[in-house]
Amino acid sequence: MRIALDAMGGDYGPAVVVPAASAALGRHPDLELVLVGLEDAIRESLADHGLEAEERITVRAASQVVSSEDDVSQALRSKRDSSIHVGATLVKEGEVDGFVSAGNTGALMAIPRLILKTLPGIDRPAIATFLPTRDSRVLMLDLGANVDCNSDHLFQFAVMGEVASRAVYGVEDPSIGLLNIGEENIKGNDVVKVAGQLLRESDMNYVGNVEGRDIFSGKADVVVADGFVGNVALKTSEGTAELLAHFLRQAFSASWSSKLAAFLARKVLKDFKRRADHREYNGAMLLGLNGIVVKSHGSADSYAFSRAIEVAASEARNNVNRRITHEIQQMLEVAE
Amino acid sequence: MRIALDAMGGDYGPAVVVPAASAALGRHPDLELVLVGLEDAIRESLADHGLEAEERITVRAASQVVSSEDDVSQALRSKRDSSIHVGATLVKEGEVDGFVSAGNTGALMAIPRLILKTLPGIDRPAIATFLPTRDSRVLMLDLGANVDCNSDHLFQFAVMGEVASRAVYGVEDPSIGLLNIGEENIKGNDVVKVAGQLLRESDMNYVGNVEGRDIFSGKADVVVADGFVGNVALKTSEGTAELLAHFLRQAFSASWSSKLAAFLARKVLKDFKRRADHREYNGAMLLGLNGIVVKSHGSADSYAFSRAIEVAASEARNNVNRRITHEIQQMLEVAE
Repeated sequence: MRIALDAMGGDYGPAVVVPAASAALGRHPDLELVLVGLEDAIRESLADHGLEAEERITVRAASQVVSSEDDVSQALRSKRDSSIHVGATLVKEGEVDGFVSAGNTGALMAIPRLILKTLPGIDRPAIATFLPTRDSRVLMLDLGANVDCNSDHLFQFAVMGEVASRAVYGVEDPSIGLLNIGEENIKGNDVVKVAGQLLRESDMNYVGNVEGRDIFSGKADVVVADGFVGNVALKTSEGTAELLAHFLRQAFSASWSSKLAAFLARKVLKDFKRRADHREYNGAMLLGLNGIVVKSHGSADSYAFSRAIEVAASEARNNVNRRITHEIQQMLEVAE
Repeated sequence: MRIALDAMGGDYGPAVVVPAASAALGRHPDLELVLVGLEDAIRESLADHGLEAEERITVRAASQVVSSEDDVSQALRSKRDSSIHVGATLVKEGEVDGFVSAGNTGALMAIPRLILKTLPGIDRPAIATFLPTRDSRVLMLDLGANVDCNSDHLFQFAVMGEVASRAVYGVEDPSIGLLNIGEENIKGNDVVKVAGQLLRESDMNYVGNVEGRDIFSGKADVVVADGFVGNVALKTSEGTAELLAHFLRQAFSASWSSKLAAFLARKVLKDFKRRADHREYNGAMLLGLNGIVVKSHGSADSYAFSRAIEVAASEARNNVNRRITHEIQQMLEVAE
């Protein structure tokens, strides 16, 4: 299992990617990693972390970096030796099983799509991530790759999400929900109404509309949304968690007695923090590309980035793409 | 100040509305309330709460009830003596200054719209509510009245939100944000891009796009969204808060020592709970109607419902509708 990492992406570049690589190697003896980017910067960071002699890490030079401010179409044309180009090309040529980057999201959608193309039967790739629920997890997609989806796109997202949920976490017959503003079939705009119709007619375990409130309740194993709505929902959930964490910190530091209470409850609060830690869920799959690409949060620290590496490895190990292609193929044959 | 209350709406009917009325009267000496609905049920509940002789409560009979399962168009036609019809008519005839209902949301959008019409210059009413931020509050709209908005609608929502923020909470020159999936002007779908253009060209204090994460950060005093997106964002935020509350409860009840910590931290946890309590923010204004109508959560308890009564009273006291009409009129004159 070989995974390429964009060493230049995100807010911290090699300073986060190199220790993340080291942590992932420690947890997965079968893993090999290829660091892609400016060679000097990578070698220096490897030396800083005492990893020059690590045989399971190799370096692949890329002379350019797509910054978060870069215009996507310009990056596409004028930065053909960027770490994102080189990483996606390694995937295309079969030199690695997947590629992880915390770089410019727009470029990370556009460049691998140009290089890898989409899977047969898939019109548009979607960003998908696992999120916590009360007792388990939910796979949500699309989280922002597509701001104007039609009903067929939503249906394809459902197929990809179903396969990924089954393949990565072994969920048997994953239940599919459609993010909407009410439970009844007549709710929502025309796009979701028709998508609901397509899902009801399919063989999938479709459980109907899911409201924002139910994303985290475990009502569905997979929640499908247009990229605009999914992105707003994901970020609203992050914002809500930050607000509540702020209120909790304020309450526990309001007075000497509340600070004492915080000290006495420190183990419990730590357990809570670990449980609610969004770093645990870092690593969004770009499903639908003909090759495995995983997007990390730009602000990810090394623990969070190492989780994104594990998402890519798990996707590769479980043949997610081959299974999506197979499932779509079967549906097309039934439809004929 | 007279406010009509739909005594039949919500999950509990008079059992919640009557004690809520009593609480609101206790806090506001200038308030009078009109309970609308099935007369026997209301009188019985008033007796249960020892309020038969309360002079500031009157009863207005309505012989029908729109249930949460009722089809909206059927309720419109065949239930013309419903509590929602009668309440909206009291507003129209100037007998009361506003109407509060926890009833069927669809019916509560459709019936008052038919009876009261919209304000001049407003195409569509929007559901708006105040939500907490770190240090203050944000007014968000639309929360579900309109599932397919064009750019003009979003612009009108911004005007209504700006006026309501200024009028109800005295915010000077409220900042307006447009809910989107990135901060740059080029982000999002065509509808929000054009709405952003309209807002940049206006006199309003437009601060640009706001991401889901920033709804609660205080970046804008008013956040404008299409009703589909706004509804999903609001409910996702509720779902996230419920999930985190669940994790917190689990952490504090995992063992004897964590239960002891919960006991020692009980005052702090109570402060936190009060701060994060969504009941505090119950009461969504149906802005844009030619008359004040406020929607309460169907599951509201009497404290939450009493907050919704206060929202209606505050809207009336601050002449929100007259000010919206004035502002829209001025913009139309400038545009001519």
